[in-house]
Amino acid sequence: MSTSLPPTIVMKFGGTSVADAARIKRAARRIVAQREAGKRVVAVLSARGKTTDELIKMAEEVSPTPDPREMDMLLSTGERISCALCAMAINDLQHRAISLTGSQAGIVTDTSHTKARIIDVRAERIRQALNDDQIVLVAGFQGVSTSRDVTTLGRGGSDTTAVALAAAIGAEVCEIYTDVAGVFSADPRLVPDARKLPLVSFEEMLEMAASGAKVLQLRSVEYARTHGVRIHCRSSFEDRPGTVVIGEDETMEHPLITAVTHSTEEARITLLGVPDRPGAAAAIFNALAEANCNVDTIIQNEPLGEGRDAEVSFTIASEDLRAAEAALAPVAAELRIARIDTDPEIGKVSIVGAGMRSHPGVAAKVFDVLAEQQINIEMISTSPIKISCVIRADMVEDAVRALHQAFELGAAGIERERPIGQEAR
Amino acid sequence: MSTSLPPTIVMKFGGTSVADAARIKRAARRIVAQREAGKRVVAVLSARGKTTDELIKMAEEVSPTPDPREMDMLLSTGERISCALCAMAINDLQHRAISLTGSQAGIVTDTSHTKARIIDVRAERIRQALNDDQIVLVAGFQGVSTSRDVTTLGRGGSDTTAVALAAAIGAEVCEIYTDVAGVFSADPRLVPDARKLPLVSFEEMLEMAASGAKVLQLRSVEYARTHGVRIHCRSSFEDRPGTVVIGEDETMEHPLITAVTHSTEEARITLLGVPDRPGAAAAIFNALAEANCNVDTIIQNEPLGEGRDAEVSFTIASEDLRAAEAALAPVAAELRIARIDTDPEIGKVSIVGAGMRSHPGVAAKVFDVLAEQQINIEMISTSPIKISCVIRADMVEDAVRALHQAFELGAAGIERERPIGQEAR
Repeated sequence: MSTSLPPTIVMKFGGTSVADAARIKRAARRIVAQREAGKRVVAVLSARGKTTDELIKMAEEVSPTPDPREMDMLLSTGERISCALCAMAINDLQHRAISLTGSQAGIVTDTSHTKARIIDVRAERIRQALNDDQIVLVAGFQGVSTSRDVTTLGRGGSDTTAVALAAAIGAEVCEIYTDVAGVFSADPRLVPDARKLPLVSFEEMLEMAASGAKVLQLRSVEYARTHGVRIHCRSSFEDRPGTVVIGEDETMEHPLITAVTHSTEEARITLLGVPDRPGAAAAIFNALAEANCNVDTIIQNEPLGEGRDAEVSFTIASEDLRAAEAALAPVAAELRIARIDTDPEIGKVSIVGAGMRSHPGVAAKVFDVLAEQQINIEMISTSPIKISCVIRADMVEDAVRALHQAFELGAAGIERERPIGQEAR
Repeated sequence: MSTSLPPTIVMKFGGTSVADAARIKRAARRIVAQREAGKRVVAVLSARGKTTDELIKMAEEVSPTPDPREMDMLLSTGERISCALCAMAINDLQHRAISLTGSQAGIVTDTSHTKARIIDVRAERIRQALNDDQIVLVAGFQGVSTSRDVTTLGRGGSDTTAVALAAAIGAEVCEIYTDVAGVFSADPRLVPDARKLPLVSFEEMLEMAASGAKVLQLRSVEYARTHGVRIHCRSSFEDRPGTVVIGEDETMEHPLITAVTHSTEEARITLLGVPDRPGAAAAIFNALAEANCNVDTIIQNEPLGEGRDAEVSFTIASEDLRAAEAALAPVAAELRIARIDTDPEIGKVSIVGAGMRSHPGVAAKVFDVLAEQQINIEMISTSPIKISCVIRADMVEDAVRALHQAFELGAAGIERERPIGQEAR
């Protein structure tokens, strides 16, 4: 039976791709084009442009601390509106489409309102609609909890919806349509010479998402890697192929460095005089985790002798700074931490590349390049395929340009990989 | 078990009662006040002020003929927004509230999108929440079809949701909060002397709703009568009791005339030369029913001899005029109807009163009063408790005032009924 079915694809359209009637119609035409090319199509839509912000504003007008369950009920309406409108547009193109809420689509989550995690996808209704020759539109960013309440998946949740559905229905690809043409070797707004990458491995994409690339949400990439879902990031405003994210074993060769990523929305917190006893660090980072602050780079200096106190320094997203300070206050009192310093003007520049594993000289070259630019490195963190340097926020742009050039990542460099499959041109 | 439970009430708030943050908070306080008075509360909310119009506009921008299923998916979001916001406001008042969609509340409908009818109310989840000491907010106007699609109930659907829930959970009363203080003996904008009626019977309310009173939707009154639900129409902006709609056997006496109602949004269609053979009228009115045009008064003159053609005249809502003309064209051709005349400037004035049954002189008095005002009666239709006269639209205001005065319905008249129960003052 399944061998006789045409291939299924998932297409995900972000908020800017459905922001007004004209864009919804354009998304509808893209969806119909894939259907007419013989594909079975499931499309996941985000809320239109400013809709979510407007709904949040309504909630703030009514309540200073909106109940999370009700916030989810409120916010989930935005994606439903997008889906219903797009279904209307597709029906006008003489194709049959139905929109489904996250709940109707079988996205089952845990009960963590506003940041729920998908625990099951019961896609029977989607399969049935596909078998009935319908195009299925699914409201992104939302699901239904095991307590039968509407939940939302948190930031970038629609990407996760799309990848989860692609895994559940065995789609050949999950296409993520956004307002950028794909994943680049650096932010093209900073580096005009930046190259669109035809292929990126999951591992690289994870490091890039974690270090500032905004094309794909980290969670969705993790989900795709775990379930082996091929992702294709592409522009909703042009037809050219974008970037395909694939398993590392699928790539023919590993470039030394794939991309330079950056972030200027970081802050650093330094705790001075942390007592050198077991459990101190755990108490600190548990408090931050409970406050939902994602800690990035952590440095702890070794105390210089027994009984001496340590110094702990770490970076977080700027927007979490206030929550982090609040969460740390009671812990600091309890541990008798001498001082908490904060620095909101922190940036980070990273180079990511799967080939780095076998080339130990990369880190040294990064430090050389930054030194040449008179850029002081405040913290360093590495993974097998990534080197991140915490620097002053106002030095980030120079650092990105210098690294991109030094590692010859630009379009002028050698095209190191061939596009695959339908992406070949 | 059930005898130990405190009484349950249903409170329904219309669109103007939840139009902005301040009004949502006011509704929240009204709901909490009933809870604190010891009631278990289910509140049904409409979409905020202009929300439904905005959603319809979005749909029209995307599609000239929006798919009804998708229209329902779209429009149902409005009430969900109201409910989520109101739940937030109630939670801030230190009470626990949850919002439920029509589907979550167990409102099961048929599959007639945009005008679905409720076929079952599975209120287990509501009962469970009430037993957990929660205030339950239900999105009005919507349900879930037997095909598991979101449906909407058509115009005034939130009233029907409220009454259906009141019936299902055995509520002692269904309170309908609007921007008017209750049901009046005539439209107070036309008749400053109009009296708020403390009590109206279902039968009278049905006739009033059908003949132009806009306080309650016809369908909800039918549902309430069938299921014996007591309705209390009252203002969301003041605390005084409004109008209670009750079974006729509950009223102590029947006033001759209860109210004068009117409508200026009527049109008349006259078919000249309708062949005098069986099935002709059926063909005409079936075509109108299929086009969803509600026909009101119908007059068919008797043909004066065998083989002579009849003349059929009827009124419909002005907004249905174009659809009716389109629906009649093929029938007229088939039946070889000589001519179709339309008149969009039609109005209707009606007097309603349960006591009319035993007073045959009422009709004659109505005609006298209108004749005194030089108002020509173009069509007449009656029921045991109603007399309606179709007149020129521009004569409606004069007719209402004259009838209201002639039947002494004003506040200056005798208070003919005592308020009952908690409504007594």
